[in-house]
Amino acid sequence: MKKFTTVDDINDLDELILTAKKIKSDPFGSPELGKNKVLGLLFFNPSLRTRLSTQKASLNLGMDCIVMNLNTEGWSLEFEDRTVMDGNKAEHIKEAAQVISQYCDIVGVRSFPTLTDKEKDEAEQVINSFVKYSSIPVISLEGATEHPLQAVADALTIQEYKTKRKPKVVLTWAPHPKALPHAVPNSFAKIMKLSKYDLVIAHPKGYELNPEITKGTTITDNQDEAFKNADFIYAKNWSSYNDYGKILSNDTNWTITKEKMALTNNAKFMHCLPVRRNMIVSDEVLDSEDSIVIPQANNRTFAVQAILTKILENGK
Amino acid sequence: MKKFTTVDDINDLDELILTAKKIKSDPFGSPELGKNKVLGLLFFNPSLRTRLSTQKASLNLGMDCIVMNLNTEGWSLEFEDRTVMDGNKAEHIKEAAQVISQYCDIVGVRSFPTLTDKEKDEAEQVINSFVKYSSIPVISLEGATEHPLQAVADALTIQEYKTKRKPKVVLTWAPHPKALPHAVPNSFAKIMKLSKYDLVIAHPKGYELNPEITKGTTITDNQDEAFKNADFIYAKNWSSYNDYGKILSNDTNWTITKEKMALTNNAKFMHCLPVRRNMIVSDEVLDSEDSIVIPQANNRTFAVQAILTKILENGK
Amino acid sequence: MKKFTTVDDINDLDELILTAKKIKSDPFGSPELGKNKVLGLLFFNPSLRTRLSTQKASLNLGMDCIVMNLNTEGWSLEFEDRTVMDGNKAEHIKEAAQVISQYCDIVGVRSFPTLTDKEKDEAEQVINSFVKYSSIPVISLEGATEHPLQAVADALTIQEYKTKRKPKVVLTWAPHPKALPHAVPNSFAKIMKLSKYDLVIAHPKGYELNPEITKGTTITDNQDEAFKNADFIYAKNWSSYNDYGKILSNDTNWTITKEKMALTNNAKFMHCLPVRRNMIVSDEVLDSEDSIVIPQANNRTFAVQAILTKILENGK
Repeated sequence: MKKFTTVDDINDLDELILTAKKIKSDPFGSPELGKNKVLGLLFFNPSLRTRLSTQKASLNLGMDCIVMNLNTEGWSLEFEDRTVMDGNKAEHIKEAAQVISQYCDIVGVRSFPTLTDKEKDEAEQVINSFVKYSSIPVISLEGATEHPLQAVADALTIQEYKTKRKPKVVLTWAPHPKALPHAVPNSFAKIMKLSKYDLVIAHPKGYELNPEITKGTTITDNQDEAFKNADFIYAKNWSSYNDYGKILSNDTNWTITKEKMALTNNAKFMHCLPVRRNMIVSDEVLDSEDSIVIPQANNRTFAVQAILTKILENGK
Repeated sequence: MKKFTTVDDINDLDELILTAKKIKSDPFGSPELGKNKVLGLLFFNPSLRTRLSTQKASLNLGMDCIVMNLNTEGWSLEFEDRTVMDGNKAEHIKEAAQVISQYCDIVGVRSFPTLTDKEKDEAEQVINSFVKYSSIPVISLEGATEHPLQAVADALTIQEYKTKRKPKVVLTWAPHPKALPHAVPNSFAKIMKLSKYDLVIAHPKGYELNPEITKGTTITDNQDEAFKNADFIYAKNWSSYNDYGKILSNDTNWTITKEKMALTNNAKFMHCLPVRRNMIVSDEVLDSEDSIVIPQANNRTFAVQAILTKILENGK
Repeated sequence: MKKFTTVDDINDLDELILTAKKIKSDPFGSPELGKNKVLGLLFFNPSLRTRLSTQKASLNLGMDCIVMNLNTEGWSLEFEDRTVMDGNKAEHIKEAAQVISQYCDIVGVRSFPTLTDKEKDEAEQVINSFVKYSSIPVISLEGATEHPLQAVADALTIQEYKTKRKPKVVLTWAPHPKALPHAVPNSFAKIMKLSKYDLVIAHPKGYELNPEITKGTTITDNQDEAFKNADFIYAKNWSSYNDYGKILSNDTNWTITKEKMALTNNAKFMHCLPVRRNMIVSDEVLDSEDSIVIPQANNRTFAVQAILTKILENGK
């Protein structure tokens, strides 16, 4: 594996999930793999799970981890070509990425979308610039349009909890007070397709995701209908993709409640976290034994450790 | 030891101090104890000594340490139950604590008081929420009402410098331009009681500490009287407890000067640091050979290393 | 080596460069040298290369590295003596430096100049206060008037690329939208003198550097003339030293272009980074094969690793 910035970078999902499961059963089993290797983690945005689980995974592999908050600790970066840099941007990504590549062996980057400039967001300007100019493998710690490490953890979690070969998985929009990115639903939809599960996406009209990602997937604006026979409910808010970055509705009829969950086939409740209680999901559901958000978050460590393992083994 | 968030969590102070002294004489003596263990340090407030000494102690034990500044690097946390999270708080402590518990083996939390909401501060809402929802041991890196790691370092320091079995120890209020918490004097008063030393607390009228903590202790508003025959002077500012969080006086007659120290039995001068020169204490006293604030700060490493050792040994 | 805060601290440059070259050929060759040692890195200002390369170098040596952003994570420091600390500064450097010396084995400090208070900047108040009060070796991660780690990397880079014993090296001012410090040009001028290379400094009138540093060096305001027969062009902006901290000109005739480089003896282009494209240097030059800014940045790791090695060997 040379980079991991989208679910599309996964060659063999079954094999990757198997690797993650092996690592989970013996997380300290390869203490030499990361020896004398440095993982650089560059954050342009807040992070809890990704930050901690990725540090934990690198330590498990005997790898050193250096964390930088680029906005506050480094220099403001220019991403446009051929500009006269006479403004506030002190360093061009061309130099920054090449330089970082010399101090680190793998670099992870988190960069959220603007949610105002669709073209720039779709181009994944920040992460793809790192890919373009770095001489080391780049992993996404959540980009503008994808969160592939989350998706691997999600797939691992469903693999662990499913009781049938091809479970029905519902990705459902739920209300939230702020405009949120599409990265998590995009990567989840992609990895569910790879998993060949029975995926249904439910959202109010106007919240259609990028049709290139969802084509071939059942989509409905009837949440109750979608929940019938569901084995997994994956709740997530996102802003409008067509009316880019806008909040069209905060309809609390879409909040996941006990009544909604009663429509399912004893479905497990999933969410990538952080989650807004009593907006996305009721306390009752989140605190119930059907909620698997905590073990789902735990799998973040093994997902990223599997990716790091694939990259490190590739480099040997 | 399952948690360490208050001096009350100490079962056997003599034994703990003995452990700290042993560690001080051989800080790298247990390099395997922390192997493959992660200490997470979560800061809601600034820190110098606690931050560095705790990292140092964990490294001494072969333990990896991950530091996070929650306010700037993570998500804003909600601590209230049953709220509709439609405001600025992105994540509930319930999830955050459970998730962090999966990536770390011990978690330390620093959270200063509001000094405006006495009830919330007394409840130690932040640290106690971590204790409630975490599945790993929680240590306080200074809470709203206690700073127990400081207290252990203080007790170790007095143990090292005392020349009689039961020294006279004076905890004296001193002036400061800002409203300060009660955490340090509270924990110090508690650990002096445990140590069975002759503790006297001196402060101007109106600066009474929580009477539940000071009951049984000699209290006076005559600083000069208190200093007579004192073996240790522990200076510290705090705001009013009764008129909660208020500054009632900045009476510089309470500043610790050479003249004041002359009243004592060649007392050692102590302070938890950071200290305001020529407010709390004159340059002359702080720079004198009777000042032991620097070795006192050094003992922070061995105090926290002793606590981590107790927790790690417990987990084996 | 007891401290490294100026190029003047170098006893034997040839031997230091040799050490750096040896380290570069075998960066993991001394994994025990830093064992159980802690390097503390204290930043008052942003940093990318220094931050990452120094962490990398310490890890290469088996040394633990603790990073602190003093302004946001610690307490505001007072550097003046005999002040009544009743303002916003919570801790005096006297205590801070002594305390940090107990938790770390070496401390690095970055503190940029004010560019308004020449006397204070020239006194290197921050770094020299750490030197004065610390009981451990202090290294500069860039001070008000010098950036000696950069200079060692620069000297190593020229040593690697030069094709004659005594190359002609031109340090040239170039335009920049903001007022910049003199630290890099000062340290570069000093180390070029030590290297006994043929140094020429070119800048517009009014941009004279500190004459104590440049005395004996050829200085010109004719950039084209300076570039003739040059083997290395080191571009850098700085603000006025005489009209302290002021921008006197942003004359883009001083930008390093292909045409300017054509005047040289196929010179290599150097810059300490971050660099403003199309202000300091044109894209064409920076992206050409004559630009060695990326390997120059790579040498930061080996420069600081050589310094840490000298200090650690000294301490044995």
